[in-house]
Amino acid sequence: MLSFKNYQVAIITEESQKYYFTNYSSEDGYLLLSKEQNFFVTDLRYFYAVEKVLVGTNFKAVIGKDYTFLAEYLKKVGVKSLGIDFTKTTLQEFKELKKLCPKIVDISLELQQKFLLKEPKEIQNIKKACEITQKVFLEILDFIKEGISEQELVAEIIYRFLKLGASDVSFYPIVAFGENSAVPHHKSGNTKLRYGMPVLIDMGCKVNSYCSDFTRTFYYGDPPKQFIKDYNAVLSAFEESFKSVKVGLKTRLIDKVARDILQQENLDFKHSLGHGVGLYIHEKPTLSPSSKEEFKNGQVFSIEPGAYKNGEYGIRIEDLVYLNQDKLVNFYTVTKRLIILDKNNKQFIY
Amino acid sequence: MLSFKNYQVAIITEESQKYYFTNYSSEDGYLLLSKEQNFFVTDLRYFYAVEKVLVGTNFKAVIGKDYTFLAEYLKKVGVKSLGIDFTKTTLQEFKELKKLCPKIVDISLELQQKFLLKEPKEIQNIKKACEITQKVFLEILDFIKEGISEQELVAEIIYRFLKLGASDVSFYPIVAFGENSAVPHHKSGNTKLRYGMPVLIDMGCKVNSYCSDFTRTFYYGDPPKQFIKDYNAVLSAFEESFKSVKVGLKTRLIDKVARDILQQENLDFKHSLGHGVGLYIHEKPTLSPSSKEEFKNGQVFSIEPGAYKNGEYGIRIEDLVYLNQDKLVNFYTVTKRLIILDKNNKQFIY
Repeated sequence: MLSFKNYQVAIITEESQKYYFTNYSSEDGYLLLSKEQNFFVTDLRYFYAVEKVLVGTNFKAVIGKDYTFLAEYLKKVGVKSLGIDFTKTTLQEFKELKKLCPKIVDISLELQQKFLLKEPKEIQNIKKACEITQKVFLEILDFIKEGISEQELVAEIIYRFLKLGASDVSFYPIVAFGENSAVPHHKSGNTKLRYGMPVLIDMGCKVNSYCSDFTRTFYYGDPPKQFIKDYNAVLSAFEESFKSVKVGLKTRLIDKVARDILQQENLDFKHSLGHGVGLYIHEKPTLSPSSKEEFKNGQVFSIEPGAYKNGEYGIRIEDLVYLNQDKLVNFYTVTKRLIILDKNNKQFIY
Repeated sequence: MLSFKNYQVAIITEESQKYYFTNYSSEDGYLLLSKEQNFFVTDLRYFYAVEKVLVGTNFKAVIGKDYTFLAEYLKKVGVKSLGIDFTKTTLQEFKELKKLCPKIVDISLELQQKFLLKEPKEIQNIKKACEITQKVFLEILDFIKEGISEQELVAEIIYRFLKLGASDVSFYPIVAFGENSAVPHHKSGNTKLRYGMPVLIDMGCKVNSYCSDFTRTFYYGDPPKQFIKDYNAVLSAFEESFKSVKVGLKTRLIDKVARDILQQENLDFKHSLGHGVGLYIHEKPTLSPSSKEEFKNGQVFSIEPGAYKNGEYGIRIEDLVYLNQDKLVNFYTVTKRLIILDKNNKQFIY
């Protein structure tokens, strides 16, 4: 389960991580892991639900509030070192834990490594999340019409995610009309769609705590020639970087492949080319100029080149891919070519 | 703005808190506050949006990634003490900040105190969130029918929140059918509604970072006599505790008012009677047996007595209230009496 190398007991407080170890997702409570025994400590509001799920596993459900159970356990077993994830623990919690145990060890890197290479069960969840995501994308194209607001489209997206079986969004959807698309993480708002605007949609959902991530940019009306040119440059950047991924290669080299293609057209993007996706929407590996990581079988990551012209438009194309048995598999099948919608919502693939 | 009592500069990293100070909600970046100058440091993805919003305020937008700008500022101005919210800062972040500044001070209590008493502008946002919430509740009663799943109802709820202008949910809605209602924080799932089941819905949305919170329990079919009896006990507990709130009174005394009424019927709830609501769904004050707080003008909090019979049903009634000028104002107008729905979705108020 865990190494227990320089700590005797680990506690897990973050929701997705609780799911990883127990297949039960809960905001409340914490997991207590040791070589000998594993506990899911939760208060009465959740206890009966947790107990039901843990039948047949090597976890025991325990009723407890705060760290009382942990304190008793540490004392009883004589534990002197505790492992916690420093990236998920607040200073407040740390102060409480420090009172209970003299030695606190950071297990964040061990957990990140554990989450880096996906197991088949995890891939199934990500795959399902991606299937729902591209289905929703195709469905919401029907809602593209004069006067609809970004926020209304967000409502349609989330509604469909949940109706199709996602448990939640993996992040709040980004819907950007017109020049808003030039803000890579635009906050969807009251901007209304007018004919002749680009539309950028970046969205994802969760299935059993696992995330999807997906971006498409399309045009409502006749796109200017420069837009089409820039779009195709972004598309080439995607395709060339996709083709260049290889097990053992430094991830930053793939980021460079995409950036080089775009720079030939005087285009650039200020974010990384991609990032790992799994229990979290941002995981390892990072595909950026400064990354020191390399590609490994079992990684799931996004490839998302973009081009942004402040005050005019932004373009981003993003798929989620899986490196398995030396092959790169794309979770999506929906076209990456430029989709153009006319006034009657007829779709043309450019 | 802040006291700057035992720290010279404060940084604010949490999204809702950034909204509180700047009226702009952003996951990225941080605020740097001092007696002299205030900055919103954010990377290029958000910079242009932030710059636009800050026009005319005493904040300056700065392009920056990580804590580079902060480090330079601390050096330049010769800052020796930094205030941060220990409840919102991870150990990882703390380690980074500690490198930049020798003295780090916890400002979480100062912030909590600042957020405790609501200003009129904040009340407007909460009021709007409550209006949307009760409107959604009345709308989704029409969806109560044989075979609908908890998760489908969640989709309808979130969809309507967003369509009516909420920016997000304040927490993932709890929809619990039948015996699931006995789990106070039930995770909405695939359970399908059958005639003769109670339905518990606990939900809330966000307007400009401010939360609403609302719970109703109703019956699809003919409720058993015991259910009606228990429901009315919970309703009395609500009404009596509502009536008993007074400025200056210990909050735990009101928790006791509700619990005493329920205990006469051998009923009880394991959670607190209520909690503050504002930028967060759980704030001060806490209305629980162990609380040492007292009621003050300007507080917004929930009153939510419940009764739970494991394996049978749970009942909870929750409104959000505002203590203002020695009067307690309820943000909701929708009935708290038992609603009964028949097969044809006709509604009866018991």
